[in-house]
Amino acid sequence: MPHAVVLELIGEKTPLYPAKYAHGLFFALLSRMDPELAQRLHEAPRKPFTLAPLIGRNRALFLRFTTLDDGLFAPFLRVLLEAAPEGLPLGDTPYRLMRVLATPEGHSMAGTCAWAELKKAPRRREATLFFQSPTVFATSKPGGRTRYTPLPDPRLIVGSLLDKWQAHSPYPYPPREEAALRILFELDLELAGFHSLRFHRVQAGKSFFPGFTGEVTLKLHSESLEAQEALGRLSALAFYSGVGAKTPYGMGVARVQPSPRPKARSSHSPASPPSHGFRTALT
Amino acid sequence: MPHAVVLELIGEKTPLYPAKYAHGLFFALLSRMDPELAQRLHEAPRKPFTLAPLIGRNRALFLRFTTLDDGLFAPFLRVLLEAAPEGLPLGDTPYRLMRVLATPEGHSMAGTCAWAELKKAPRRREATLFFQSPTVFATSKPGGRTRYTPLPDPRLIVGSLLDKWQAHSPYPYPPREEAALRILFELDLELAGFHSLRFHRVQAGKSFFPGFTGEVTLKLHSESLEAQEALGRLSALAFYSGVGAKTPYGMGVARVQPSPRPKARSSHSPASPPSHGFRTALT
Repeated sequence: MPHAVVLELIGEKTPLYPAKYAHGLFFALLSRMDPELAQRLHEAPRKPFTLAPLIGRNRALFLRFTTLDDGLFAPFLRVLLEAAPEGLPLGDTPYRLMRVLATPEGHSMAGTCAWAELKKAPRRREATLFFQSPTVFATSKPGGRTRYTPLPDPRLIVGSLLDKWQAHSPYPYPPREEAALRILFELDLELAGFHSLRFHRVQAGKSFFPGFTGEVTLKLHSESLEAQEALGRLSALAFYSGVGAKTPYGMGVARVQPSPRPKARSSHSPASPPSHGFRTALT
Repeated sequence: MPHAVVLELIGEKTPLYPAKYAHGLFFALLSRMDPELAQRLHEAPRKPFTLAPLIGRNRALFLRFTTLDDGLFAPFLRVLLEAAPEGLPLGDTPYRLMRVLATPEGHSMAGTCAWAELKKAPRRREATLFFQSPTVFATSKPGGRTRYTPLPDPRLIVGSLLDKWQAHSPYPYPPREEAALRILFELDLELAGFHSLRFHRVQAGKSFFPGFTGEVTLKLHSESLEAQEALGRLSALAFYSGVGAKTPYGMGVARVQPSPRPKARSSHSPASPPSHGFRTALT
C-alpha cells in the first residue's frame, strides 16, 4: 500500500545538503534493519521509495518519505523509531525526531492510499499537477549519451507515472494494453497550460541536475474510457511515486489537484484545496 | 535578403485585435500591389513573412513586419508608403504612419541581414533565445489530430528554424546533410535553462492558440562543427523568421542573445545587450 509520511526533525542547525543527508540516513537505517535489502535497494535501478526534505519553520526540518512497497514501509518505520532516541544523524549533526505525521490532517504531504483505491481513482480528461520539487526526465539517447529533459512534456509525465505503476502496482496493465495506452497518450494528451514554471539546477546524489517546478495542466483529447481511467490512476499515483528521475534524492515531488467532485446537493464541495504553495528544501 | 522593419502608427484608439487587424491591412495592401501574389501568399502553407504588433507608449502602435523574400519587401514598402497618406486602416480605425524604422538604431527589433551573412554567423555551442511573443509548435498527429506544443522543446525550436531555413534560404542544406543535422539536434541538443517562462492563450487568425514566452538556453553537446555552424545560423535567422507556427499573426517573435565576441584587447566588448524586456502587444 502506498504511504507518504513526514518526519518532523529538530536539530542544532539547518543541514547543508538535506536531500543528500536524508538519503544517507535512510540507507543507514535500512542497513541496520536488513543489510541485504539495503544493498539490493541501493543497486536497484528503480527504487520503490522517494525521499524529500521539505522546508519547515524555525529550526524544524520536515523529511518526507514515501514508499510503494509494503515490505519496506512498516519495518522502516520500526527501525526509525528504534533509532530515534539516539538521535538521527543528518550529515554530522544528530536530529531529534519530534513527530511522525502520517495523515493529511497531520501534514498536507502525508497520507496513505491502497492500490485498490488508486485503481478506482475517478476517470479524468484533465489533470492539474503541482510539481513541488525540481522534476526532470532522464531521456538518454543511443551511444551512451545521458540527456535530461527539464520540461513538463505531457508524454514524459504520464510515461514516467506509467513506468512506476507497471513496476510497483499489483494491477499492472498487460503488455498490449500498456502499449495502447502509451500510443493514446502520445497522440491525444496535450499541455493545456502551465503556471509559475521555474527552472532549477539542484544536487541529487553525486551530480547536479536541471529540473522544473510549477503547476501544469494536462488535457486528454480522447473518448477512450481506458485512457481517462489511466489518467485518473496515474495522476493519483504521483503523490506517492513522485515523477521522473532522482525521486529518492528529493526531485519530482508532485501532487494532483483533486478532481471536482461529482455534482452534489451543495455546490460548496469540501474538496481539500491543493497545497501547491508548499515548498521543498530543494527549490 | 531578410528584413525586419517596425512601423510606428498613431490612431485615435488602441486597436482591439492588433495582430488580426495588422494581418488584414497587410493583405489589403498586398492585393492593391499584386492581387495574384496576395492570393498565392494567402493560400501558401508556409508564409515568407511575419507580422507582429509591439506595444508602444501613449497611443503609438508599433507594427513589426519581417520578410525572408526580397520579392516581397521592396514592393510592399512602396505600396505601404503610397497608401499611408489616406491612413492605414486597422479594424475600423485609420492609423497614420509616423515612421518606418528599418535599422537597429531606430528600433531594437528592426534590421537587415543578407543571407550570405546569416550563413557566416559564428558557430555556437549554446544559444539563448528570447521568445517575445507567445510561441507554439504545430505538432499534429495522425488521424486528423491537430495538436500544439507550447513548450520550448529544443528539438522543436531548431526543427522549426531549420524548416524555415530550408524553405527560404538560397543556401539550403542538401537532403542528406539536413537529415544528419536533424538527427544530431535530436541526440545532442539539450535545454540548459529557462527563465520567465509564461503560458499564454492568444487569438491568431480565427482561433485561439496556446504559447509560451520567456528566455530559453539551448546547449549543443556535439563536437560536430556542422551542427555548431547550423545552430549559429538558425539562431541568427530567428530574428527574421520567427519561431514555430502562426508567425504571420504575431506569434513566435524571437531573437537570440548576441554571441560573446571573440576575445578582444578590451574586455568591455560593445556587444549590444539583448532587448528581451521588449513586450509584444500579444502577450
